[in-house]
Amino acid sequence: MKHRFLMALPFVALAQTAAAQDDPIIHDAEYYILLAEHGEQWAEDDAAVEAELVKFREANGGKPPNIINVLIDDLGFGDMGIPELNALRGYETPNINDFSDEAMRLVRMYTEPSCTPTRVAQMTGRLPVRIGMGDTAVDIAGFGLPSSEVILPEVLKQAGYTTSHIGKWHMGDIAESWAMNNGFDYAQMAVHQQGQLTIFNDDAIFEGVSVAIDDYVPAYTIDSNFRPDASAMMTTIEAESGGPIREIRMAAGERWNAQKYNEMNQAFQDKAMEELVRLAGGEEPFFLQYWPLLPLDNTRAGRDGPQSPNGGLYADKMQLVDEWLGAMFDSMEELGVADNTIVVLMGDNGHFTKYSPQSGYTPMIFRGGKTDTTEGGVRTDAFIRWPSMIEADSLLNSIVHVSDMYTTLARFAGADQYIPRDRLVDGVDQSAAILFDDEQKARRDHVIIYSADKPKAIVKDQLKLKLPPPGENPIVAKFYNLYHDTREEYSVSTEVGAWGGQEFVRILARHLQRKELFPDTPPAFGMPYEGVENIRPETQAAVGAFLVRRDAPQQR
Amino acid sequence: MKHRFLMALPFVALAQTAAAQDDPIIHDAEYYILLAEHGEQWAEDDAAVEAELVKFREANGGKPPNIINVLIDDLGFGDMGIPELNALRGYETPNINDFSDEAMRLVRMYTEPSCTPTRVAQMTGRLPVRIGMGDTAVDIAGFGLPSSEVILPEVLKQAGYTTSHIGKWHMGDIAESWAMNNGFDYAQMAVHQQGQLTIFNDDAIFEGVSVAIDDYVPAYTIDSNFRPDASAMMTTIEAESGGPIREIRMAAGERWNAQKYNEMNQAFQDKAMEELVRLAGGEEPFFLQYWPLLPLDNTRAGRDGPQSPNGGLYADKMQLVDEWLGAMFDSMEELGVADNTIVVLMGDNGHFTKYSPQSGYTPMIFRGGKTDTTEGGVRTDAFIRWPSMIEADSLLNSIVHVSDMYTTLARFAGADQYIPRDRLVDGVDQSAAILFDDEQKARRDHVIIYSADKPKAIVKDQLKLKLPPPGENPIVAKFYNLYHDTREEYSVSTEVGAWGGQEFVRILARHLQRKELFPDTPPAFGMPYEGVENIRPETQAAVGAFLVRRDAPQQR
Repeated sequence: MKHRFLMALPFVALAQTAAAQDDPIIHDAEYYILLAEHGEQWAEDDAAVEAELVKFREANGGKPPNIINVLIDDLGFGDMGIPELNALRGYETPNINDFSDEAMRLVRMYTEPSCTPTRVAQMTGRLPVRIGMGDTAVDIAGFGLPSSEVILPEVLKQAGYTTSHIGKWHMGDIAESWAMNNGFDYAQMAVHQQGQLTIFNDDAIFEGVSVAIDDYVPAYTIDSNFRPDASAMMTTIEAESGGPIREIRMAAGERWNAQKYNEMNQAFQDKAMEELVRLAGGEEPFFLQYWPLLPLDNTRAGRDGPQSPNGGLYADKMQLVDEWLGAMFDSMEELGVADNTIVVLMGDNGHFTKYSPQSGYTPMIFRGGKTDTTEGGVRTDAFIRWPSMIEADSLLNSIVHVSDMYTTLARFAGADQYIPRDRLVDGVDQSAAILFDDEQKARRDHVIIYSADKPKAIVKDQLKLKLPPPGENPIVAKFYNLYHDTREEYSVSTEVGAWGGQEFVRILARHLQRKELFPDTPPAFGMPYEGVENIRPETQAAVGAFLVRRDAPQQR
Repeated sequence: MKHRFLMALPFVALAQTAAAQDDPIIHDAEYYILLAEHGEQWAEDDAAVEAELVKFREANGGKPPNIINVLIDDLGFGDMGIPELNALRGYETPNINDFSDEAMRLVRMYTEPSCTPTRVAQMTGRLPVRIGMGDTAVDIAGFGLPSSEVILPEVLKQAGYTTSHIGKWHMGDIAESWAMNNGFDYAQMAVHQQGQLTIFNDDAIFEGVSVAIDDYVPAYTIDSNFRPDASAMMTTIEAESGGPIREIRMAAGERWNAQKYNEMNQAFQDKAMEELVRLAGGEEPFFLQYWPLLPLDNTRAGRDGPQSPNGGLYADKMQLVDEWLGAMFDSMEELGVADNTIVVLMGDNGHFTKYSPQSGYTPMIFRGGKTDTTEGGVRTDAFIRWPSMIEADSLLNSIVHVSDMYTTLARFAGADQYIPRDRLVDGVDQSAAILFDDEQKARRDHVIIYSADKPKAIVKDQLKLKLPPPGENPIVAKFYNLYHDTREEYSVSTEVGAWGGQEFVRILARHLQRKELFPDTPPAFGMPYEGVENIRPETQAAVGAFLVRRDAPQQR
């Protein structure tokens, strides 16, 4: 695409004159347009935020708030927190609904369209495409998050936080990428994701939800490694930072199955509850990250029958997640940390429609789901609770990107000075909008929606432009008014090519131009699972098979 | 379609043994299946309901509750009462949302797919197809609701109620069908509907939302009456029961336009507020029916600019409706009738997608809209408030058909003995489920969804069968699990033809068999507008043109 509307923007000058900080975070181009318009107000707001944070710390023994960060897989907007919508689908999330009544709903939270990129964006504060992490790998892949990224727990640690991660990770199968090597004092984490754990196993084969593994007929199968098998892949690993990393709960020769998956999930919940007690008893402020693998579950093995009138595979487990989170919220009360802890609770992207309708879920409000760049892929439930600091039962209807949580939580923790200044950070500081419940104080009015490494859509205010495929004339691009048309079904085509189309193409052009200064870099590559002490022989064999495949194109 | 599964059901025997009343209301076949299963419990529940109603009347000076019945046009599920969903579309209904917090939401209220049939069902307690009122007329049509129907105000009047109707009527353009001739002591009503009032006028032509009227070139137009024109049609009429009926606010020769429509709506609101004061000051319990024409409005003429971030033609007016209803709720408080008045507030069917997205609305949750028999056509917001009698901020997730409001409101009013026993009544008494907030006490688990005179779908529990067109094998019919698949996009086809398909076909067969005993009858036919004192000359001419068209097929 040709960018005919490029303009040189005086980024540095603007930043230096208007930013509240002496050493400002480097942002993408659009930020500086809003900064030019609102810089003075933002400086005032920053001071007001600081005053609130100081007041909080003074009342909290000098300490910044604890933070609990819960990220749930594949949820659509309205799955949690709205009893009317629970009712439509015949299941209930009463604990999360009560939590929602105490929290602010970030109505326009935009995630990335898939698990890995959303998690990368939340952890790094950057668009995942900037480090080649825009895509999701299910199988052994030998790449992941580079250690050069300064992720949220690393930022918080510098401000004195104790940090812990429990549950899904899914940002790489190389040690360089893992939680315990990136700022978490302790981690118990699933290396891969639920596709592996719920589909590549014997119960899933029995129930017909998986391609066959066991029943390959050798006579017709000459590539004997061409089969997915969770049993051969690394499952849960555990370590303290700097300590030995070990796979847990799988013995050599053992088969992965639905019961193992249930045990894994229960163990994550138990560990998260245990960590909460441990961290709440400590002297330091804590950052507890809990990324459950449920509600995703693709087999009926071991179930006692429907738990909800819905009866769908995910809907039932969503009720279990609700029960578990309810127990966590109760425990926070008992431990006396409910009031001095920020809880972020959100989904990572929309529903994976591949599992509709047996999951019990189909995209209900927005169109599309996981992997789509329609709103159904990237809009999900998101709440933030901080009693007496954030207005209870409130709604913030400003655009927030998941990367903003990096910047904003760092700010709330008084740790924003540890956000690196040597790279572009996409996340903006939304603390004023959130603390003062004021959409006018939001610092973002747009989001560029990528699918893997391609920008696919741009949202600004209520307008959305679906970008045309490369080489196609932008004049045919489809343009939607999201307030009028939540499902993106009625393209407002008359406006494309006139003001709206041009403006949106310019947003993309400025974004791409800025990449010339801050180019995208590749992810980290490495040997899968290297550094784990107790790799099983079948896992070693699977890594061997992976290497053969990886190196095949390099042979000469 | 052949009905091979017909069974003779011992209706009368069941009714006589199990019904609580000596002279039971005659219902459709399915009712007697549930009665056979739950008759004893229902008798207990009826006694418990009666005890509650007696208690209420004793505390209310011996009087049954007042009833206010607000029916709003073309609303989708979630348009009102859920702040999160307001936010998604950039408009607000704060007064209705507050009202919702004090009311019970009837989550599974099923209407008919269009205005006229829904209104007929609510007023008569019967499926509109039973009296040929399943369809909607926009223009002069010469037919309507027969006076032989005993509509809700007629039932309530026998129990001593004072009754009043304000706003849309749209159940016929013949005097036999009108509110003032059917149990309303007073009525100020729009004879036709908003298509006439917002599209067949000069502003709509100017804005290009209408087919042309004025600019017909006579040289190319030999049928000079082939043009819709609101100015020639009857607009608002007003009368006391038995008194003269007069058209108001239109003079001979005057043109209808957007300003007239605005005035009409404001006048309905003012009159509804005035009637509330008058009725609240009377001795008798009152039934005030207010059927606003807004939010429907298809022109921008006379608007001061967007009233909401959404800015859509309907969304802005929805905010006005919210303001107006807020004023009514406030007035109820001031008049001291908030606590002894039941308020029913609901939509009459889904959005008319013909006006999407410029209306500011598209179907958001369910698929389809007005005229469709997908859930988007027949599921809408519905609330019932009765302080201290009905649980505040509650949800009833049982199937309720709009005809059930007839039976249930009559029961609440202690007027159910005046419901006729000489005909089939589709509405069932949902008072126990509503008063005791108990889905197990619901008396309906299914609904047959008609489009005009054809049954198109059957819902029972969460299952929905889309009936195949006549002559087509039912085995190809599509079957949906509404909990899993709110949008009816994933047909569960494997179950059709097995248990589910057969059972659903039997429901239809029993319903049709029952029609042999209680056959459908035609609507009332007559001379449009006859009986109005001050018919304008242009209106007389339009009636003349209608008669020529009507009689053309009868000529020999």
